[in-house]
Amino acid sequence: MVVIGNEILSGKVVDGNSGLLARELRELGVSLDRVVVIPDDTETIADTVARYSAEFDVVFTSGGVGPTHDDITIGAVAIAFDREVVIHPELRRLLDGWIDGDLTPAHLKMAEVPAGAELVADEHFRFPTVMIENVYVLPGIPEIFKAKVAGLRDRLRGQPWYLRQIYVSSDEAAIAPSLDATLEAFSELLLGSYPRLDRSEYSVKLTLESRDEQYVDAALDDLVGRLPAGSVLRVER
Amino acid sequence: MVVIGNEILSGKVVDGNSGLLARELRELGVSLDRVVVIPDDTETIADTVARYSAEFDVVFTSGGVGPTHDDITIGAVAIAFDREVVIHPELRRLLDGWIDGDLTPAHLKMAEVPAGAELVADEHFRFPTVMIENVYVLPGIPEIFKAKVAGLRDRLRGQPWYLRQIYVSSDEAAIAPSLDATLEAFSELLLGSYPRLDRSEYSVKLTLESRDEQYVDAALDDLVGRLPAGSVLRVER
Repeated sequence: MVVIGNEILSGKVVDGNSGLLARELRELGVSLDRVVVIPDDTETIADTVARYSAEFDVVFTSGGVGPTHDDITIGAVAIAFDREVVIHPELRRLLDGWIDGDLTPAHLKMAEVPAGAELVADEHFRFPTVMIENVYVLPGIPEIFKAKVAGLRDRLRGQPWYLRQIYVSSDEAAIAPSLDATLEAFSELLLGSYPRLDRSEYSVKLTLESRDEQYVDAALDDLVGRLPAGSVLRVER
Repeated sequence: MVVIGNEILSGKVVDGNSGLLARELRELGVSLDRVVVIPDDTETIADTVARYSAEFDVVFTSGGVGPTHDDITIGAVAIAFDREVVIHPELRRLLDGWIDGDLTPAHLKMAEVPAGAELVADEHFRFPTVMIENVYVLPGIPEIFKAKVAGLRDRLRGQPWYLRQIYVSSDEAAIAPSLDATLEAFSELLLGSYPRLDRSEYSVKLTLESRDEQYVDAALDDLVGRLPAGSVLRVER
């Protein structure tokens, strides 16, 4: 995911779109491998999109889409793929239906796409998303970002992950040997260890994940058996 | 900023450290140019840190520091700079003071640093930060991350930014020509345009920024004069 946002880098706005996409993709069984927040700068956007498009299966951009001077994402993505910027007739038709009176140049900017882009839409075609090569171009406004991601669910769905969690009362240093031993026996396990310092009811939360449900449950049993006696507060299956 | 965090990419935890660092740096007059969230993977961390260290003046990492198997940042940063991992005597001394009894291998892991790293600390030396080349290695636990960043303030301070804001009732398409005209006259101005879709009292918030206070105020007057009559709801100086 490429987040385009001076407002985020300067601390004026907290980015919620990356967290939303992370949760959506997780639910769909799709791994999110990278999130980068970059400034509103055409060259930086073009370079980043070109590199991520080559390195990853799918790229999402967030932000910089709209009618004003700082909405430069479409132009930058066009440069990334060496395309012209053109007016998409379907987007123009949608805008014509939404806007009273003639479309101004600022309105028309919202119908611009890199040449060869396709529009991806759910059955309602209320929020079509511009897609070029393997890049989905999404707006930064949270409500629209969310609606467009929801419209893409059926295209993105993968194989689900199974998550188990253990809450323990010991500190990380005390449980580290148990974690190492379980990882030796279950090398494919995704095992996370997250300490809490505020006064909560547990000291460390352990997360166990796999795309194989039997495997994660076997690893869970193994680890619970290895942890220091009396340290397991709760197990979530 | 390089955020190391499977838990963030998988949507289980919302990263608050990047927002905190963005706000802190902004207050100190330092530009944050990039935030990237990457998985807990040694090669990815080493590659990213090496690249960012060469490209930017200063790099902060967040996460992957501690006593367990998933705390791999120190080793990865060592690889980025082609160093060995060694036990830092000062960190070992601090741990000896905190821990009852002998230090275990898991405890000692918390004293590891890339060879040649220095410890940066405020006068209390309660939260020394590992620094190697131009990279500050910070832990992911929000409370400690915050305390360590606070301890670095005096080292990081730069030239302040001046921010002015205009709240308008018109939509972005209607004000785009005014924004373009002001940018033509004030080409150094950082001008942001942020529409709100929820039913708030304004339609668009405009942010004007510069490191020159007189310049941003002149640009503000210029833009207020150009915006459509009656569209300016409020100006924040």
